[in-house]
Amino acid sequence: MDGLPETIATEETLDPRDWADMQALSRRIVDDAIGYLKDVRDRPPWREMPAEVRAFFSAPLPRGPAPLADVYGDVARNVMAYPMGNIHPRFWSWYMGSSNFTGALGDFLAAIQGSNLGGGNHAAGLMDSQVVDWCKEMVGFPASASGTLVSGGSMANIIGLTVARNVKAGVDVRERGVGAIPRPLRFYASDQVHSCHRKAMEALGLGNRALRRIPTDAGLRIDIDALKTAIAEDREAGFKPACVIGTAGTVNTGAVDDLQALARAAAEEDLWFHVDGCIGALIAIAPESRSLVAGIEQADSIALDPHKWLHAPFEAGCALVRDASAHRNTFAVTPEYLESAPRGLASGEWLFDYGLQTSRGFRALKIWMALKEHGVEKFGRLIDQNIAQARYLTRLVEAEPALELMAPTTINIASFRHRLAGASEERLKAFNTEIMLRLQEEGIAVLSDTTVRGRHCLRVAITNHRTRRDDLDLLVAEMLRLGREIGAAATPT
Amino acid sequence: MDGLPETIATEETLDPRDWADMQALSRRIVDDAIGYLKDVRDRPPWREMPAEVRAFFSAPLPRGPAPLADVYGDVARNVMAYPMGNIHPRFWSWYMGSSNFTGALGDFLAAIQGSNLGGGNHAAGLMDSQVVDWCKEMVGFPASASGTLVSGGSMANIIGLTVARNVKAGVDVRERGVGAIPRPLRFYASDQVHSCHRKAMEALGLGNRALRRIPTDAGLRIDIDALKTAIAEDREAGFKPACVIGTAGTVNTGAVDDLQALARAAAEEDLWFHVDGCIGALIAIAPESRSLVAGIEQADSIALDPHKWLHAPFEAGCALVRDASAHRNTFAVTPEYLESAPRGLASGEWLFDYGLQTSRGFRALKIWMALKEHGVEKFGRLIDQNIAQARYLTRLVEAEPALELMAPTTINIASFRHRLAGASEERLKAFNTEIMLRLQEEGIAVLSDTTVRGRHCLRVAITNHRTRRDDLDLLVAEMLRLGREIGAAATPT
Ligand SMILES: Cc1ncc(COP(=O)(O)O)c(C=O)c1O
Ligand SMILES: Cc1ncc(COP(=O)(O)O)c(C=O)c1O
Repeated sequence: MDGLPETIATEETLDPRDWADMQALSRRIVDDAIGYLKDVRDRPPWREMPAEVRAFFSAPLPRGPAPLADVYGDVARNVMAYPMGNIHPRFWSWYMGSSNFTGALGDFLAAIQGSNLGGGNHAAGLMDSQVVDWCKEMVGFPASASGTLVSGGSMANIIGLTVARNVKAGVDVRERGVGAIPRPLRFYASDQVHSCHRKAMEALGLGNRALRRIPTDAGLRIDIDALKTAIAEDREAGFKPACVIGTAGTVNTGAVDDLQALARAAAEEDLWFHVDGCIGALIAIAPESRSLVAGIEQADSIALDPHKWLHAPFEAGCALVRDASAHRNTFAVTPEYLESAPRGLASGEWLFDYGLQTSRGFRALKIWMALKEHGVEKFGRLIDQNIAQARYLTRLVEAEPALELMAPTTINIASFRHRLAGASEERLKAFNTEIMLRLQEEGIAVLSDTTVRGRHCLRVAITNHRTRRDDLDLLVAEMLRLGREIGAAATPT
Repeated sequence: MDGLPETIATEETLDPRDWADMQALSRRIVDDAIGYLKDVRDRPPWREMPAEVRAFFSAPLPRGPAPLADVYGDVARNVMAYPMGNIHPRFWSWYMGSSNFTGALGDFLAAIQGSNLGGGNHAAGLMDSQVVDWCKEMVGFPASASGTLVSGGSMANIIGLTVARNVKAGVDVRERGVGAIPRPLRFYASDQVHSCHRKAMEALGLGNRALRRIPTDAGLRIDIDALKTAIAEDREAGFKPACVIGTAGTVNTGAVDDLQALARAAAEEDLWFHVDGCIGALIAIAPESRSLVAGIEQADSIALDPHKWLHAPFEAGCALVRDASAHRNTFAVTPEYLESAPRGLASGEWLFDYGLQTSRGFRALKIWMALKEHGVEKFGRLIDQNIAQARYLTRLVEAEPALELMAPTTINIASFRHRLAGASEERLKAFNTEIMLRLQEEGIAVLSDTTVRGRHCLRVAITNHRTRRDDLDLLVAEMLRLGREIGAAATPT
């Protein structure tokens, strides 16, 4: 048998040779991070990477070691300096939260503690379940419901739609597959539904065609009569209407479907009622606005997204399912090597029985720490604040003759464009795109563009705890300046 | 219009009121984390939570704020003190890595920087693609292949199997669903296949029944003749054999299927060849052992798992697909509000077009930093080290009359049990389970148990950069002591 001293000498580890060095470097990293967020407002939201930075990321796999201080230097220079920009007060593009320092500490501690949230009898597992319970509380779901923290809203929607599929299939779809379903299932959502539902339908083997897009009213909410007509048609044609997806906050314009009417329709038609609340479910905690999502508590399943309006650092989504056993029956497997033990580590609950992952990270900690630090009431006020800011921007747009509102502002998304006298839709699109790009390139603000009812527009989605009203004043002033500059420079079409 | 001073006064943020306080607390958290890992060997791997700790996790949603220092105090006391234990040198349960300090810094920085890896033209996006390229390099995949970082091995397998399904369906399965596939697809894997493949088959709407489990040989590797027979039977019966899943390292015993033979069989039978390399793909970087996984580079798709043998903190999995356009064609959607722009942030690649997530976290950073710090050669040596340690333990077991090896040791997993003269299988299981639980409860080591060929056994899976051979000496000594104590206490059956 090998002697002990020799053994120790030849066995390697990833632990640092000198913990004091690691401590010194870590303190420097923390100090830099403090400065990074403290001064975020003084930097541009986004900057183009120079060629040498782009080239840096094409280096091949490193063979040998490098001092960690140098590695960090590379990260500071080439990564931290060129972020997406969503931590900046004037980032309003796509739809995402702006992270927070406490959440970053949570992710650090989760990685230090290292636990696998696949399950087991340990503290992280209990906290994971507690955060799911808090999510139920936030949207008014009963304590008897179940849920799981997942990678984001897309996965949360997949969880809900998988349970819907399996419950409504009428056969043992887990064992026999979608091909064995006697009457093909039909799912319904508005024509504003997020693209992740298409991905979900495709992944689940139901096919994109099985998701019928229902027209929307003037407010871009699902038309309930059109929904009922579609359901009747489908029954007639031999399909089985199985599930309606209500959207609480569409990604395009922030429209909120009439969830109470959808709940009634789902009950009448015997459909599963899923709510995509990735954007808007948490409006349920906002004192001024919560009536907008009334009815969400009647859903069979809900997808919500702590990495949006709770500003958890990526990733954190949550799926909730009213019928806990339907949820578990959709996903649970009991492989031999995971037999549960009478005592000890393996005697805890298997959290992976509620979704598609086996190993799971400790996402709960960052959410838990921020909720404890600020309290849910403050998160509610911050949601109201963003909604009030979008309304404020809407008023600025309406008051300004050079700008045109393109869709009603319901929550925290405003869609509008710069006018250009006599210009075609095509020319308007090019003009507004140029304004959007110049706002980015000049380091002023990041917005995105979209198409509403066939017309191109700019879109400001304020899920940002750092935005202030004066940021929106600045946006409007700079848009008008750029409009003048670009309009003057271009040859008219 | 509201005046500016009033506006600032009433607008709230999640940023700390006093950054200096946050800095002081963060430094304390870092110092504690250094101590936590430096001294991990001096603590038990796992401890039962006292009742008051369990009760702590049933508190309802906090309404109002609390000082962050108090929140951290709660985390230190109730969370950090009761980990799963996989960061400990004598944790060998289930199958997971043991994290590392540098990776925790990576997760912290990723959360500070905050970028969304759904895509776009920013540094994190480029690094994400670079780490995927490094993964290709590690397993010998061509640079033209594609890939994506995902939440773990289960999702990486789902990615591979979804591409396989869509490529082999023979119809537009994205649009029309699994029900439109003319000849039902059949997938094949050994009877040792990980449970996540069952979940994948069910989620994809193919059904568990469409995954045929093929018997294994004495080494618990898939029996290639039996595979061919099954394929012929299925063709005969009107099914379409579509995909064979080879396992490079089974979770039960670490068996590695003959990947070269599987590659040949897949080519002959026109099947998609997927390799579940969550455990073993990275053996390709280990100089002493890499021949064990020869043939992996011929796969059509591979799942591998940086949160296992690269010890990335959870979560980090990776799916690789040889045919990049088949990969993209399986998942890409182009919703209007994500139209790509000619310049600026939206001109980057849409990374979400390669999987099921939309928002994606910056998992790449923790992997990148650790690979740069240590170099891939060291990770290769660490894999060889764990394999040598499992062989060392196997020799100890074979040399010890009271212990019995239960399966061949191929890589880093050893399966064995304590003998008990004249005892039934049932009694042996109870006896060994008690040894396993006492090892945990006395703070000695964490192993798991499983069933191999119908017989219960204990299982030591060494994916641990902190384990030393003397830890295994201690394990054997303590098992023998516990065997004597428990054996003596029990009334014989
Ligand atoms: C309405 C809606 N649903 C679902 C999603 C997907 O959420 P995630 O990006 O967290 O996957 C989004 C993302 O913006 C969304 O706006
Ligand atoms: C062989 C095998 N495949 C897949 C998985 C699933 O990986 P993950 O836990 O990362 O989802 C595991 C997990 O242990 C495994 O051992």
